[in-house]
Amino acid sequence: MAARAHLPGHAGPRVRDDERDEESEKRTMTAISSSAIASARRAFEDILGPTNVFFDELDQQSYQDKFAVDDERHHPAGAIAPSTVAQIQEIVQIARRYKVPLWPISRGKNLGYGGSAPLLAGSVILDLSRMQKIEYDEHNGTVLVEPGVSFYDLYDFLKSRGLKHWLSVPGNSWGSVMGNALDRGVGYTPYGEHTARICGLEVVMPDGMLVRTGMGALDGSPTWQLYRYGFGPSWDQMFAQSNFGIVTKMGLWLMPEPESLMGMDLEFDKPEDLGPLIDAIAPLRREGVLQQSPTIGNWLRAANIFTTRGEWTDKPGALSDEVITAIRKKFNVGWWGVSLRLYGRESINKAAYAVLEEAMTRIKPMSLKPAKWRRGEPLEATGWTGTPLTFPMQNANWYGGRGGHIGFSPVLPQSGAAAMAQFKRTYDRYKEYGMDYQASFAFGERHLINVNAVLLNKDDPEMMAKVDPFLRQLIKDAREQGYGEYRTHLDYMDAVENTYDFNDHALRRLNERVKDALDPDGILAPGKSGIWPRRYAKEREA
Amino acid sequence: MAARAHLPGHAGPRVRDDERDEESEKRTMTAISSSAIASARRAFEDILGPTNVFFDELDQQSYQDKFAVDDERHHPAGAIAPSTVAQIQEIVQIARRYKVPLWPISRGKNLGYGGSAPLLAGSVILDLSRMQKIEYDEHNGTVLVEPGVSFYDLYDFLKSRGLKHWLSVPGNSWGSVMGNALDRGVGYTPYGEHTARICGLEVVMPDGMLVRTGMGALDGSPTWQLYRYGFGPSWDQMFAQSNFGIVTKMGLWLMPEPESLMGMDLEFDKPEDLGPLIDAIAPLRREGVLQQSPTIGNWLRAANIFTTRGEWTDKPGALSDEVITAIRKKFNVGWWGVSLRLYGRESINKAAYAVLEEAMTRIKPMSLKPAKWRRGEPLEATGWTGTPLTFPMQNANWYGGRGGHIGFSPVLPQSGAAAMAQFKRTYDRYKEYGMDYQASFAFGERHLINVNAVLLNKDDPEMMAKVDPFLRQLIKDAREQGYGEYRTHLDYMDAVENTYDFNDHALRRLNERVKDALDPDGILAPGKSGIWPRRYAKEREA
Repeated sequence: MAARAHLPGHAGPRVRDDERDEESEKRTMTAISSSAIASARRAFEDILGPTNVFFDELDQQSYQDKFAVDDERHHPAGAIAPSTVAQIQEIVQIARRYKVPLWPISRGKNLGYGGSAPLLAGSVILDLSRMQKIEYDEHNGTVLVEPGVSFYDLYDFLKSRGLKHWLSVPGNSWGSVMGNALDRGVGYTPYGEHTARICGLEVVMPDGMLVRTGMGALDGSPTWQLYRYGFGPSWDQMFAQSNFGIVTKMGLWLMPEPESLMGMDLEFDKPEDLGPLIDAIAPLRREGVLQQSPTIGNWLRAANIFTTRGEWTDKPGALSDEVITAIRKKFNVGWWGVSLRLYGRESINKAAYAVLEEAMTRIKPMSLKPAKWRRGEPLEATGWTGTPLTFPMQNANWYGGRGGHIGFSPVLPQSGAAAMAQFKRTYDRYKEYGMDYQASFAFGERHLINVNAVLLNKDDPEMMAKVDPFLRQLIKDAREQGYGEYRTHLDYMDAVENTYDFNDHALRRLNERVKDALDPDGILAPGKSGIWPRRYAKEREA
Repeated sequence: MAARAHLPGHAGPRVRDDERDEESEKRTMTAISSSAIASARRAFEDILGPTNVFFDELDQQSYQDKFAVDDERHHPAGAIAPSTVAQIQEIVQIARRYKVPLWPISRGKNLGYGGSAPLLAGSVILDLSRMQKIEYDEHNGTVLVEPGVSFYDLYDFLKSRGLKHWLSVPGNSWGSVMGNALDRGVGYTPYGEHTARICGLEVVMPDGMLVRTGMGALDGSPTWQLYRYGFGPSWDQMFAQSNFGIVTKMGLWLMPEPESLMGMDLEFDKPEDLGPLIDAIAPLRREGVLQQSPTIGNWLRAANIFTTRGEWTDKPGALSDEVITAIRKKFNVGWWGVSLRLYGRESINKAAYAVLEEAMTRIKPMSLKPAKWRRGEPLEATGWTGTPLTFPMQNANWYGGRGGHIGFSPVLPQSGAAAMAQFKRTYDRYKEYGMDYQASFAFGERHLINVNAVLLNKDDPEMMAKVDPFLRQLIKDAREQGYGEYRTHLDYMDAVENTYDFNDHALRRLNERVKDALDPDGILAPGKSGIWPRRYAKEREA
């Protein structure tokens, strides 16, 4: 097996090597032959030139998941980087000819969920980061972007044109605007549910056919980025978190620059404040007083961008309440904190602010700090203003060593009681496994996502041995409550998909029937979101 | 052919009988055999009992499209009315066994777009109107409804529970809540884009498999109606305007009862006022000052619910400007009228009202009538308050005789210039064909739908001869501008689908590849939205 033959040694300690290797070997040996990879590589070079085809040892390593529990489990055979749709169409034909699986990435910054690595070791990374075109419709407030456009790229583009429209950015703005929306990432403005603002896609199907969805299916339509449904069935969301096609262009709506931004930053003192806080925000969100989607974060989410664990303790296991109190005191953060923001006309924001203030004062925050901006004033560089940011990623340094985090993100009802129960259950598990608890509760219009970052240090073998059992326990605990994840790391796609079990996994059967019809050779991202093409059926985790 | 053998005579005059009959015969002869229908009918009776199986002459007639140009073109073989999901699963097996096409309807009130009739004559109507269960989650403001639940049913249900949540209703509230949302119907409140408020479906697939989408795929999930995307690809919009499955339950979000409703009814005097009006409303809609989707309607849309043509003239051809002026004077309506509404807290509405008033005053309406309501006051029974209504359907009486209307509804950019050009082009065609112009421009968040009702009198053979060529001309005119319809009558599904032509009809190829994978026998609604299963490939209109 080509990919494995080239595997480099590891500097850091490794965990359960034998088990992992066996499992990984099993996952890749069945269907990808090294001679096929070698032939495909030559064919890729014919199309892209040798400078855009990367199959050396260091290339392979550079596309690994930097936060992985096991670097080899998702080790790629190599990577190719086309710059045009026509090249992608040719690549797809080569992949079909040699039965080589492709793992498309936009910019590969899906940190916490697998980064740039493929689910199936031995896959070829289809790196689309060279495709960076932006088309901007200033009148209507829409863009059409290629996969390689990062939040920084788009921000710079809009800023050079007077920032008439604001972005919504995720905590890691290093990544791709398209990749994030297609993975259902979230931001902080009223346009924060990114996938909901997608309007029209261009997709290379696994047989090379180029499709445009929605109004884009009407050649030359001026409404491709204006009306998302088109005529007949609508497919945009079929290409989210899936493996049915390679998205080469995505329409996205942007928020018009508001006249005013108002709101407040709130801190709450006790763990038990979470329930009342959720019950206070939820109705405001549902009735639309609040249009953005606030995120309630715990003290560690706020503090670990300023400090590291070693500055406070060298004791293993979960932090004691004493240390937590000391850290909170130093950085003046609540056990929970949340920011609420209003966007639009100043006169309307003022009226809405009074409603928010009344509701928040009633539940007695430990602090309430008003925030206010008016068009023309200097703009604070935060997620609330759609300014790209990367500082939340500093949480990877918490434990020291080669740090990282893996996400665990179940969907909950908007209920204080449900959230408190979920918090207590999960916090107890963190303590049981000796991990420090970083969590947030992010509001949608009618749901909550409880985003847990499992922080880790890849140079701590004892800790690393616990990460996988811990995450599987959390998935199991959530399932028992009827909760499923909205998004997960490569390692848990099968496990999470397996929790979506209604009627003997009817949704899986639908997904895989469509998969086999559109991708009979199984060349696109086998295993993504638990969707396995027939060719790789045996690779599904037991 | 069974369906045709039973065809009753017609009381009213008929148009181009020979041509139509030939075409209709051609469309149904190929694939549906009368012996298969007879066998299927017996099997349906075994499951449903004879009282829920309707194959007599009068039954067939009662499921025809009452507004059709040609009653026979979409004449069904009969109808069956199950009351449970298990029965539908059995029906699907019978349809596969005998290769009998089913045409699912919710309540069959899709007037202007085909009513209860099937696209393919000789199909069996699967009438789901007996399925009327409602599950209500008052805390989260969601319902889970079966296909037979009408807007009246749901309104009565909510009213008996204190109307804590408001509906968004279409002009014809006689119809099904589910059917309307799945056909992408629209209403007048901030929840007026009904399809956008769908959250989770239950679907019987063509092979009988029962699927739940989104979080419903997780058995027993409390978040089925709360988070629409689930894990992996999301399918809700795949079942809109399509023929991939039979939707048996639909989750829908409801608007919390607002504290206050404010707004204004505006009339504008001249045809040319349309452009500035659209350019004034569009930015308010995009920035979110206006959350609902206003509809600008012309004088006839307002007047034809109060009067009929015969009261004003007996001249054929399009109405003269003199008559139009007289009618407008009598009913005190503008050439165009529009209503704007704000929903929510009174203090916020007041601030937003001032913004609307300033913007509207600037473009000089001929009248501006403020509207105001506060919780506790008696509620006006209009579309703006989500009260079911049917009065707009009185437009069918405009010409006298057996009246009706057929919709023509292209999607436009939100541009005054584009809308004015579309208006002029279409109005000229109405005059050319001698038809009276009823039109509206309905706002979405970033698009306009130009809904034209082609009013007709089935007892006027001269008029009826013009309807089909007229509608085909409008489709062609729109295509030349890059515009496609968002929804169309059965007669024009192929013609409209044909305008979605990017890359040699790539979207059609995707649709039909999925269709054949999920419905290899082509039993579900062949031809719906121009999607033809392999078995009926020859039926597609040239």
